[in-house]
Amino acid sequence: MREQLRQLRDVMTGLGIHAYLIPTDDFHGSEYVGDHFKSRAYMSGFTGSAGTLLVMEDMAGLWTDGRYFLQAADQLRNSGITLFKMGEKGVPDIDTYLKKHLKEGMIFGFDGRCMMEDKALGYRKIVEEKGAKMETEMDIVNGFWEDRPEISCRPAWVLPEKYSGMSFADKIGMVREEMEKKGADFFLLASLDDICWLLNVRGDDVAFTPVVMGYLTCTPDEVTWYVQDKALDGKMKEYLKENGILTKEYDQIYEDLSRLPSGTSVLYQPSRTNYALTSCLPEEVRRIRADNPTEILKARKNPTEVENERIAHQKDGTALTRFMYYLKKHAVEAGETEVSLADKLLELRKEQEDYVEDSFSPIIGYGDHGALPHYSADEESDRRIEGKGFLLVDTGGHYLEGSTDTTRTFAMGPLTREEKEMYTAVLRGHINLSMAHFKAGCSGVSLDILARTPLWDLGLDYNHGTGHGVGYLLNVHEGPNAFYYRPSPSRRSDSVFEEGMITSDEPGIYLEGKFGVRLENLIVCLKDPEDSSFLYFEPLTMVPFDREAVLPELMTPKEIAWLNDYHEQVFRAVSPGMPPEEVEWLRTVTEKL
Amino acid sequence: MREQLRQLRDVMTGLGIHAYLIPTDDFHGSEYVGDHFKSRAYMSGFTGSAGTLLVMEDMAGLWTDGRYFLQAADQLRNSGITLFKMGEKGVPDIDTYLKKHLKEGMIFGFDGRCMMEDKALGYRKIVEEKGAKMETEMDIVNGFWEDRPEISCRPAWVLPEKYSGMSFADKIGMVREEMEKKGADFFLLASLDDICWLLNVRGDDVAFTPVVMGYLTCTPDEVTWYVQDKALDGKMKEYLKENGILTKEYDQIYEDLSRLPSGTSVLYQPSRTNYALTSCLPEEVRRIRADNPTEILKARKNPTEVENERIAHQKDGTALTRFMYYLKKHAVEAGETEVSLADKLLELRKEQEDYVEDSFSPIIGYGDHGALPHYSADEESDRRIEGKGFLLVDTGGHYLEGSTDTTRTFAMGPLTREEKEMYTAVLRGHINLSMAHFKAGCSGVSLDILARTPLWDLGLDYNHGTGHGVGYLLNVHEGPNAFYYRPSPSRRSDSVFEEGMITSDEPGIYLEGKFGVRLENLIVCLKDPEDSSFLYFEPLTMVPFDREAVLPELMTPKEIAWLNDYHEQVFRAVSPGMPPEEVEWLRTVTEKL
Repeated sequence: MREQLRQLRDVMTGLGIHAYLIPTDDFHGSEYVGDHFKSRAYMSGFTGSAGTLLVMEDMAGLWTDGRYFLQAADQLRNSGITLFKMGEKGVPDIDTYLKKHLKEGMIFGFDGRCMMEDKALGYRKIVEEKGAKMETEMDIVNGFWEDRPEISCRPAWVLPEKYSGMSFADKIGMVREEMEKKGADFFLLASLDDICWLLNVRGDDVAFTPVVMGYLTCTPDEVTWYVQDKALDGKMKEYLKENGILTKEYDQIYEDLSRLPSGTSVLYQPSRTNYALTSCLPEEVRRIRADNPTEILKARKNPTEVENERIAHQKDGTALTRFMYYLKKHAVEAGETEVSLADKLLELRKEQEDYVEDSFSPIIGYGDHGALPHYSADEESDRRIEGKGFLLVDTGGHYLEGSTDTTRTFAMGPLTREEKEMYTAVLRGHINLSMAHFKAGCSGVSLDILARTPLWDLGLDYNHGTGHGVGYLLNVHEGPNAFYYRPSPSRRSDSVFEEGMITSDEPGIYLEGKFGVRLENLIVCLKDPEDSSFLYFEPLTMVPFDREAVLPELMTPKEIAWLNDYHEQVFRAVSPGMPPEEVEWLRTVTEKL
Repeated sequence: MREQLRQLRDVMTGLGIHAYLIPTDDFHGSEYVGDHFKSRAYMSGFTGSAGTLLVMEDMAGLWTDGRYFLQAADQLRNSGITLFKMGEKGVPDIDTYLKKHLKEGMIFGFDGRCMMEDKALGYRKIVEEKGAKMETEMDIVNGFWEDRPEISCRPAWVLPEKYSGMSFADKIGMVREEMEKKGADFFLLASLDDICWLLNVRGDDVAFTPVVMGYLTCTPDEVTWYVQDKALDGKMKEYLKENGILTKEYDQIYEDLSRLPSGTSVLYQPSRTNYALTSCLPEEVRRIRADNPTEILKARKNPTEVENERIAHQKDGTALTRFMYYLKKHAVEAGETEVSLADKLLELRKEQEDYVEDSFSPIIGYGDHGALPHYSADEESDRRIEGKGFLLVDTGGHYLEGSTDTTRTFAMGPLTREEKEMYTAVLRGHINLSMAHFKAGCSGVSLDILARTPLWDLGLDYNHGTGHGVGYLLNVHEGPNAFYYRPSPSRRSDSVFEEGMITSDEPGIYLEGKFGVRLENLIVCLKDPEDSSFLYFEPLTMVPFDREAVLPELMTPKEIAWLNDYHEQVFRAVSPGMPPEEVEWLRTVTEKL
């Protein structure tokens, strides 16, 4: 049995805790978590990006999803921890497991700071039904994790208005308007991307996400940023002072919340505010549980942001198109592998001015690895590229001018008829959504089907949404906009599209053991200048689709016209940043079909 | 001032009522109401099918929608009643009006039997906010309406299992299963179509709807039908006895509900159960407000019903195609008008075996009348058909084998290029939805866009849903299935499609002052036999589209193939019921494009 598990059980026994849960979350519900927050990995030995550990007296279980079944089985061997494969038939989810195994009088614990309120209230309901108790003010792991990394505290910096397009003063004015509409006199904001958007600051505290650890509170008169003081240099402090933004120490928020005067109306979003925070609120405080008003404001990119995003995508498109050239001309003979190609692409991105960092961990999968939508190559799985079949490349970068997320599937040599048919079907789906001209009021539940129809007609489908919102130099996955025909409370794809929203358009086909095709552009929603009751999408991403994989006879004239026009735009956008011999090549791969 | 208004105010003063509301509804939330329930028309003089009258001491207002602005203005002249044009800019809706004009201590009244609970609770909220009171146990109009018609009491009859496809015993078993799932030990059902579906009975108590006035209650052991005894003949009583269905007098339900033992868990649907009923429930009763389990069960037509519907549509298609022949060959020279053509069509329908009645009031509009989606010709508006332009015909019939609802737009002579372009766009929308091949889990919010895309691409749209569910010899508008991209709590187009659901597919274009095009088939949802995770639609309606109005060069090869295939089916289905010279004609109008 794993030593850490033994230690945890000892402490649990000492504290009288019967069940202890360790999720994979930081204090802010971030998608990626810093090393300080990797308690679950430390405890279990399983290092995948998603998983929840539940420890009881006579069991320990780790729940994770299909991406990690093999890795988790491997890493959990001899640990004394059972793997629960989420989504598999007959495997209970954690809620079901708890409902069965929590008994009256038991104490169920977790660190309330690492659990968003909506989830915590779900557990509380189960606990109450079972007549058990819930203890959420303890981070047990901390007690015996000796070399635990500190909470990240990298320098924060100001994002100038030429990038953000809107001053803090204007943003906070809009937030206060929304507070008034909702009858709130206090707004508690814990999600890092919302805070950074509002303050026009950025940092480097979360992997792939240039944000600053912190909390924010806002009243009609004051804005207070709870932030690690050593993250702020003189220039930043001056900026904050100029804008009337108060600062307090990061941890101070808990005490401050507990002292709110009764009668205060506190607005917060349960899915993005941790349970420890909301547990601090006095009983007499009125809770207004609603979406953070920052979410929708941040999703509607302003004209400056949209114009900047075009620049960011021109830069990123140049890097990716040069990468495509390298793939087509040199990769096979150079003996490149999935992992080495990721390094090559990073190199090309870094050549672009104002590149900040990757916006997520690259997915580069050759052959049947392309059929795993969330594949991440490592030393063990790494594969050398051969002169045939598909290479799927899903990567993105942050620039001062915005963030990218692009997938292309490249022919590395001769393709089978089936490979070409699948590529063409996915391309048609991608194009059909991208071409949409639709009435304001339309949501992603409606639009999604445009991308799926060419696949559904063939009896094919993909088991993920067609697209997600994308932040501006923030989270690569951002709400509320999304494309998905299945409405779900967590996805919110029923939110209607508005001018300025940036969303990915990424249908795919995954044939297990054979190959995968995914084609992804970011598209920005704009108003039809001739009739503003209609909206349409403009592609931001500027990277050629692989003509070698296309069967034009399966496409409609309208789809072919779109593709030809798109390739013309790509040529114009990226050729200026390419050496002459690459431009010649680009001319041929963007030729009209 | 209208005499009735004076009388009403007298009674209101006597009773101390400050505001009295008269909606257009019966005790069952029926779409059409019988003459007994036309209090609003009696009081106001306005005879349109939709409208709500509010009378206060110093005002009387009638709210109605765009269909009736002209008629209402005319009929309300000198009545002392102000017309409130719903949806017009600056015109408050009733809720807003009440919020402004109800004052503390005022008494607001209406007949709780004619108001569904969900709406009544909305009013109660307003009343409470204003510190007013609500009085719902009075039908004031009844006191002075001397010649008020009786509540309809036409004979009820049994629908044999060869039509219904499922015995009462099987249906009640399914309902009880759903009750158990919801933890209900008492189910209160007030919607007439649900009751008739469940009992396998039909009647003739509501216009265009072969239902029987009644209420129903169901416990794990007993089913009681509260029904007018004189509607039941010996045969019906025997059927009820055989099936263990108890009967009580129609009105008795109110008292019975008030005597329910405390602790009973009562299931009912607030939007289909009147407020007087739910007000009778004792305080100690647990209310489970949820959809009537009958709704979804009724919407999933069983295989017998689907097979019958094919027969009903063959009959109705024969009548309509013969009508089309008459239109094309004789209508203009015979001097036909919108009204006379309705009679002609009724005649042709009546020739079909087992025709019961029309399923709604015919919409037959020539020229710019076609641009009014809910046009109903009367003596004054009636127009003679000329040898040009479009005639829009939206009609339907009830048969023992099911119910139809079909719209065709016919060229009555030469068409303009614009008329043909619009027809072709609508036809493409109709076909695209009809061709859908989609994953189970898909709702009408997603599918709707398939019909709209060809119109949206041209900057056109229609201001109504693309389709509604249709009952089997019941309501022509039935839930929960519907096509509409705007999700709304009342429409429920977010309900997912299931095998057996029958829905209309009816996109349109309405050019005010010029013409309208609407094309409607009923389509039944079926499972793909090759992969049951996919669903598709089969057209039930069998009537030619007008090839003279089609521009094939604007259609895709796939759309043309669909149309050719459909016309082949139509020929096979309806030619056997037509005289030889009409069959010859049918052959030409269903020829391949």
